[in-house]
Amino acid sequence: MTTDKIDIHRGLADVYFDRTESSFIDGKEGTLLYRGYNIHDLAEKSTFEETSYLLIHGKLPTRSELDAFDVDLRSSRAIPDQVVEIIRAIKDSHPMDVLRTATSALSSFDPDAGDNSPEATLRKGLRLTSQVPTIVTTHYAIRDGREPVAPRNDLSHAANFLYMFKGEECDEDTNQLMDKDFILHAEHGSNASSFTARVVVGTNADIHGAITAGIAALSGPSHGGAAEGVMKMALEIGEPENAAQYVKDVLARRDRVMGFGHRVYRAEDPRARHLKAGVKRLSEEMGQPKWYAILEAVIEAMKPYARRGIHVNVDFFAGVIYYLNGIPEDLFVPIFAIGRMPGWVLQVLEQQENNILLRPRLAYVGPEEQAYVPIADR
Amino acid sequence: MTTDKIDIHRGLADVYFDRTESSFIDGKEGTLLYRGYNIHDLAEKSTFEETSYLLIHGKLPTRSELDAFDVDLRSSRAIPDQVVEIIRAIKDSHPMDVLRTATSALSSFDPDAGDNSPEATLRKGLRLTSQVPTIVTTHYAIRDGREPVAPRNDLSHAANFLYMFKGEECDEDTNQLMDKDFILHAEHGSNASSFTARVVVGTNADIHGAITAGIAALSGPSHGGAAEGVMKMALEIGEPENAAQYVKDVLARRDRVMGFGHRVYRAEDPRARHLKAGVKRLSEEMGQPKWYAILEAVIEAMKPYARRGIHVNVDFFAGVIYYLNGIPEDLFVPIFAIGRMPGWVLQVLEQQENNILLRPRLAYVGPEEQAYVPIADR
Repeated sequence: MTTDKIDIHRGLADVYFDRTESSFIDGKEGTLLYRGYNIHDLAEKSTFEETSYLLIHGKLPTRSELDAFDVDLRSSRAIPDQVVEIIRAIKDSHPMDVLRTATSALSSFDPDAGDNSPEATLRKGLRLTSQVPTIVTTHYAIRDGREPVAPRNDLSHAANFLYMFKGEECDEDTNQLMDKDFILHAEHGSNASSFTARVVVGTNADIHGAITAGIAALSGPSHGGAAEGVMKMALEIGEPENAAQYVKDVLARRDRVMGFGHRVYRAEDPRARHLKAGVKRLSEEMGQPKWYAILEAVIEAMKPYARRGIHVNVDFFAGVIYYLNGIPEDLFVPIFAIGRMPGWVLQVLEQQENNILLRPRLAYVGPEEQAYVPIADR
Repeated sequence: MTTDKIDIHRGLADVYFDRTESSFIDGKEGTLLYRGYNIHDLAEKSTFEETSYLLIHGKLPTRSELDAFDVDLRSSRAIPDQVVEIIRAIKDSHPMDVLRTATSALSSFDPDAGDNSPEATLRKGLRLTSQVPTIVTTHYAIRDGREPVAPRNDLSHAANFLYMFKGEECDEDTNQLMDKDFILHAEHGSNASSFTARVVVGTNADIHGAITAGIAALSGPSHGGAAEGVMKMALEIGEPENAAQYVKDVLARRDRVMGFGHRVYRAEDPRARHLKAGVKRLSEEMGQPKWYAILEAVIEAMKPYARRGIHVNVDFFAGVIYYLNGIPEDLFVPIFAIGRMPGWVLQVLEQQENNILLRPRLAYVGPEEQAYVPIADR
């Protein structure tokens, strides 16, 4: 059949499917606003809890609003024993597969299961935001043969995550860097995982289904895999003086240099700079300054390409931060998921508010109508 | 910010996002082709196994190809004990939530886990096609306090499903009607669940993630819920003579009559007629002819609206078939999922073949850049 007259929008790249009050991304200028607030202000002045409130409620909280919100978050960190057992049963899987299954299973124990109202969706979304870090660290402990570390409610979201991961509290600098990393990953418009969540909500499915599906999408290397890719690259480069040759070789075989370029940004990814200083400090503190030096050398080698709109993205620095904290590479994407939770909750709530089935079309290019031949005559 | 100049395609309704060789749907004419073969031929002459082969491989099989394919399907029906335990842990949830979690968990036990090649994806897709009915009937038995019925490999896909559900073999007519129901639900282009699966694959995520996400989308009442809605309506109507008044009342309060209308079809849904005769026969055989009579009376009452393109869809007759087989209402959507499996597998494979990140845009209509005010000053 002919599709000559049909406009095909492969990848839906420049197709607008709805309006949003979530975030504003200007890829040419390198601008990112969450609910109207510049990412630079939020990265420097806000906390993950406050930014989550902003994303979900659409305004910056007063002190008492933030306190109440934080109490909700802190009190929901534990996951049911049955979900711990499910994690135990699938402990040898990739952490993203475990996160997907455990998130899906949490719906079975949620007191608001079956209630798809905006109020219940918000409560479930906040609970999931609190529970996802616990899933990740519970799995990490179990596969290492240790007992999971129970969450603490006297720590911030980021500090508690690091505490559950390491079994001991981190210093304030490290907690703040993790907090900033979560802020920078919290929301990014209709990226593939948020879009997936919206498509699921479009059928009036619930938030557990939507976020499970979002996690499935994030698990794909083209979406969440960049931080892991950058760290692998840094390890392959090994020493700063090898960086220029490495970049040359990668480009010669027409491969991508990891952590550069973004579907949306043609200018610098405005999130990248906020992790840069953290990587520098952390790698010096840990007596491993070479990791920062390697990244700097890669940027230097890539400079001729910056003119073509190829700049570092947020994941360029994130991987080294995780690595220096002793986090194994296969937990990098789950950490992205922890950060993205408030954005997914926001996208789900906004889709619900003015909902519509998201059902684009495929242009048929297969054979014309075929005669059915009985099997004996084939 | 202004979005005056931006075209918004709400619901992506007439946006083509790619080419396909899967199925051709002409909503105006009421035509549906799977891989070029008319749904009427397939419903009347084919089997679910043969149609699955056609969908997945793109051609009708020879006898030996079909036999080999069927051996693969029959040998993969069992699910691991650990997944049975997971189902037990979440047994009180809605069957679609259980199906989503168990499908996600199956990835942890699949011998091809981590291999995203087309060959491994095909093997995983066939395994899932075989396993999904076992998940559904295992959960059904467990929540009823019975031991799950183990699958048999001497029965067809449809006959084995009914056997696992009832604990005894059904007669040939009933098996054939179930088989036909699965054929009619097997594939339908870029419906919301298949589109979800494609968006997930677009990030290079794997087929377990894609189909888990598809199940999440199908669980929404706007996608998979129609058969359940029709049966509830038939039960509310109670007797054929109440149908006309019921329809009048529903339309007077501007509600929808369930099982009528479809996002794509403006003519008759070509799948509907193939279940009609089955409902008639089955309801007579069971000594409950009134169910067929009620549906006929509803169609009669809706006739004035047929001119406006509102016709019965495939789910109009499906629900009564399930009901007469003693299948509880909350298993209707899982049965849709069982039927849709080969279509999802096909859509995943086709997306992988010429893959691209599916990332449309949202037009920002929120506030312009806001000044960040410290919390003490808010």
